[in-house]
Amino acid sequence: MTNVQGIAASSGIAIAKAYQLETPDLSFEKKSIDNPQVEIERLEKALEISKQELEKIKAHTKEQLGDEHAEIFSAHLLVLSDPELINPMKDKINADNVMAEAALDETAKMFIDMFKAMDNEYMRERAADIHDVTQRVMAHLLGVTFPDPALINEEVIVIANDLTPSDTAQLNREFVKGFATDIGGRTSHSAIMARSLEIPAVVGTKEITSSVSKDDMIIVDGMEGIVIINPTEEEIAAYREKQENFAKQKEEWAKLKDEPTFSADGEQVELAANIGTPEDVAGVLNNGGEGIGLYRTEFLYMGKNELPTEDEQFDAYKSVLEQMQGKPVVVRTLDIGGDKELNYLDLPKELNPFLGFRAIRFCLENEDVFRPQLRALLRASAYGNLKIMFPMIATIEEFRQAKAILLDEKEALLKEGKEVSDDIEVGIMVEIPSTAVIAKQFAKEVDFFSVGTNDLIQYTMAADRMNEQVSYLYQPYHPAILNLINNVIEAAHSEDKWVGMCGEMAGEPLAIPILLGLGLDEFSMSATSILPARTQLKQLHKKQLASNKDKILSMGTAEEVLEFVNELIK
Amino acid sequence: MTNVQGIAASSGIAIAKAYQLETPDLSFEKKSIDNPQVEIERLEKALEISKQELEKIKAHTKEQLGDEHAEIFSAHLLVLSDPELINPMKDKINADNVMAEAALDETAKMFIDMFKAMDNEYMRERAADIHDVTQRVMAHLLGVTFPDPALINEEVIVIANDLTPSDTAQLNREFVKGFATDIGGRTSHSAIMARSLEIPAVVGTKEITSSVSKDDMIIVDGMEGIVIINPTEEEIAAYREKQENFAKQKEEWAKLKDEPTFSADGEQVELAANIGTPEDVAGVLNNGGEGIGLYRTEFLYMGKNELPTEDEQFDAYKSVLEQMQGKPVVVRTLDIGGDKELNYLDLPKELNPFLGFRAIRFCLENEDVFRPQLRALLRASAYGNLKIMFPMIATIEEFRQAKAILLDEKEALLKEGKEVSDDIEVGIMVEIPSTAVIAKQFAKEVDFFSVGTNDLIQYTMAADRMNEQVSYLYQPYHPAILNLINNVIEAAHSEDKWVGMCGEMAGEPLAIPILLGLGLDEFSMSATSILPARTQLKQLHKKQLASNKDKILSMGTAEEVLEFVNELIK
Repeated sequence: MTNVQGIAASSGIAIAKAYQLETPDLSFEKKSIDNPQVEIERLEKALEISKQELEKIKAHTKEQLGDEHAEIFSAHLLVLSDPELINPMKDKINADNVMAEAALDETAKMFIDMFKAMDNEYMRERAADIHDVTQRVMAHLLGVTFPDPALINEEVIVIANDLTPSDTAQLNREFVKGFATDIGGRTSHSAIMARSLEIPAVVGTKEITSSVSKDDMIIVDGMEGIVIINPTEEEIAAYREKQENFAKQKEEWAKLKDEPTFSADGEQVELAANIGTPEDVAGVLNNGGEGIGLYRTEFLYMGKNELPTEDEQFDAYKSVLEQMQGKPVVVRTLDIGGDKELNYLDLPKELNPFLGFRAIRFCLENEDVFRPQLRALLRASAYGNLKIMFPMIATIEEFRQAKAILLDEKEALLKEGKEVSDDIEVGIMVEIPSTAVIAKQFAKEVDFFSVGTNDLIQYTMAADRMNEQVSYLYQPYHPAILNLINNVIEAAHSEDKWVGMCGEMAGEPLAIPILLGLGLDEFSMSATSILPARTQLKQLHKKQLASNKDKILSMGTAEEVLEFVNELIK
Repeated sequence: MTNVQGIAASSGIAIAKAYQLETPDLSFEKKSIDNPQVEIERLEKALEISKQELEKIKAHTKEQLGDEHAEIFSAHLLVLSDPELINPMKDKINADNVMAEAALDETAKMFIDMFKAMDNEYMRERAADIHDVTQRVMAHLLGVTFPDPALINEEVIVIANDLTPSDTAQLNREFVKGFATDIGGRTSHSAIMARSLEIPAVVGTKEITSSVSKDDMIIVDGMEGIVIINPTEEEIAAYREKQENFAKQKEEWAKLKDEPTFSADGEQVELAANIGTPEDVAGVLNNGGEGIGLYRTEFLYMGKNELPTEDEQFDAYKSVLEQMQGKPVVVRTLDIGGDKELNYLDLPKELNPFLGFRAIRFCLENEDVFRPQLRALLRASAYGNLKIMFPMIATIEEFRQAKAILLDEKEALLKEGKEVSDDIEVGIMVEIPSTAVIAKQFAKEVDFFSVGTNDLIQYTMAADRMNEQVSYLYQPYHPAILNLINNVIEAAHSEDKWVGMCGEMAGEPLAIPILLGLGLDEFSMSATSILPARTQLKQLHKKQLASNKDKILSMGTAEEVLEFVNELIK
């Protein structure tokens, strides 16, 4: 029996047989070719078989997991039919006289590098899509078997170096009881998906694929971040008990589903959820969400070849607002980089995309993209409690300009006789240090703030959290971050405005006591974190935590802060 | 007669004939080839001719402008002999059966992209070097003439789309009286070089190359940022007078060369210079510098295939300290990204290099690079007034770790019987928002701060200033930047520590009154800005400026700040 330590990524205990999800060997030897036409035909055949397979997997996923999960395969099928990707491959075969494998590999790499260099997680997922589907095509060119996790049909724990978005989407909850990976962190895509699917997971173990053999029995403890390989009978028994306790705890949490959120000393806060599509709302309500603190609208713009129409957007926003029945819904306007047509394959490559042309910067320069979204939002406002939030605001001028366009569209809609709510709050994401620093100046003009910690930490520490060599500097508990958050809250409250937080930090058990003490009004998180957070908050004394504020804010290091908080909540 | 408006980049008036520095058409048609060996021989011949030309230009430059300026051509010659660049070209010809032009073009682009993606201006200059020399080789492959500004031998004003570092290095001050470009800003390389060469320059005109014809007479007004094409006799006369007045003003400035720096109300500050090599010290002393506020040590690591030895570094640091005769010299430790060997062509490509693995982050992980530099500095400390500064500090732990290594080496040197000063101040660059935010915590441990505005602005605004689409967000006068600077100064003074500034902002006539009012102790700038700054400071009342501090810090936008300051110093 061996224990492997990793990062706790999604709570729960799983006990089952290991299933190694292996990437096949797709290397090939470069050979010169005699007939480009033969290579083009080989490529076309591999594309065709891949499409047929993907259609099958899509149908299977739809049947097992529903429309939403099957969507990713529509995106994959689109990629395989995209002439902007396929034609360059054929051109390459003709122009450079290379084999189909080389043309596929080089073209795919070029596009993947381009997408990866974008500042947006959805764009990076497009890179993952291209990677996934071109790997499949390559497997067919080479005559190698390609693994399909969607076809798993017995209870297993999936073991992999990493899980791509499409791998995760294919995991069938009926059979996949948990997973463990070599790489990744608590905020990597696979970890977020695991929490949303409520599958126990441990990531970043570094060695799990090399430690586990085929058919080994394993236990995944998603609370402690441990994987136990070939446990003893006693261990299995102990973990079965832990599993039952966790189930009981979940039942306890469920009792709080329709309760408001109060601290032990009777101070109320709001627990909201982050969502990406109208389909996510059911999960929010099931988990006792009191609102939507962040509705990311980028999905509407993805997996298609043109912009969503105003009506398509209206339908989505209206659906979310209606489902939420008057509870607050904060919608973030488009947070994407790119050119006017949003033609993904033509997006400009930037040297430092995280410091580049995106979100409100892009929208203010592309009103033909921005205005239809604002119109759709304004029209939907009649159906619920809408709040509009602009992302990546760095200057007051940007906010004023965005708000002026919004008011302009409101006036136009009223003139057209459309119904628009008179009570829409307009706020901003605080994710750029400049805005956190002069929050007092902003507080006079915005209706609310929502702190986006993921980006705020990156910029404040000048460290790309996706870059492993500096990811140690991604420190949510660094006193500078806490001081900036405190500055935003104090500034907002002095103008009677409210402050939410929609970064990963808002749902972290160690952050919640600090944020409560600082006076945060709204905590927005993954839906599945809401009930544990409500349970935790019931036990915290806000006034006592607030009395430690100055002490925490004057600490020098994240380590000191964590030590103090760990002691505090013992 | 036409006026073209641009950005004032370097003061002075130039009146002369236009000299169009044109980039030749280096496009080519891709053709299939029969014999790779023939292409390899063509490439080798073009490389050989290019080397011979560069040797000639190097000799010419050395004769005309001295060793320092000729150095860039040594770097260029190194590039042309680098097997890591040349072999991939040959491999490409053999493997892909392409013509020499295509192999050169694709290989050069790959390396240029890689270097451009680095976070460091010196690395980006390497990209420019590769671009320059491969353009020359391409010209020879295509049989096209390549312009050599070093060979200009009559009085002219150079007109170009942009000037590369090597173009600028080749400009002979005897004949080149000024320049004007289509692109660039006040802090672009060509503008900085123009100020250092004291050549009047206007950049970013957008249209100068298309507005000027061969042999047009033109005037460059580097104060107003105007270029006048084919001026009238009256205009020429008026500008000759302006030119004389400027010369007189420079004489006035020169009188302040050996004066200390006092404000009108008798408050003293220090005016220091930023340098890159020991050769720069003469210019600092000629321009009345009271110290070196930033000695960038990267040049020592550039233009060679291996790390500088401890002794080479010692010689350079000692030379600077001795020349400065006891005046303070702040040396910044290595601010570079890269792998252990600093083998430039192997540096890892990062998605967001500005948020990546560089400077102190790199040094703390590569003690074999860091320790020899610290030893060289400690040994040199016996020869003057040395202060050591660590770049890119984001956490107190990083500072503690760096200082511990320094003290460790000090102890080792003392045991070896080496002389080390007992009075070396150890401080940090404040260029990451986190450090500016918790300056109070840092002030207890560091001996001084130096605010690096160039990076601090980029991170605080989350905008890459090299990215044209977001360069409007690079706002030195944004109230958030001023609040952070103020926070650093207040924190430092409460612990009796001093604060300098070594970003471009420290020498800006509009920034100086604000910074004086905030209490900045040391202003470090281009040597040629020192005397104008001393002249300006003599007229400013610090106490009066300080009384406006709260007003400025509570403003909402950079525009408001600039309006107010413009009014204030009228």
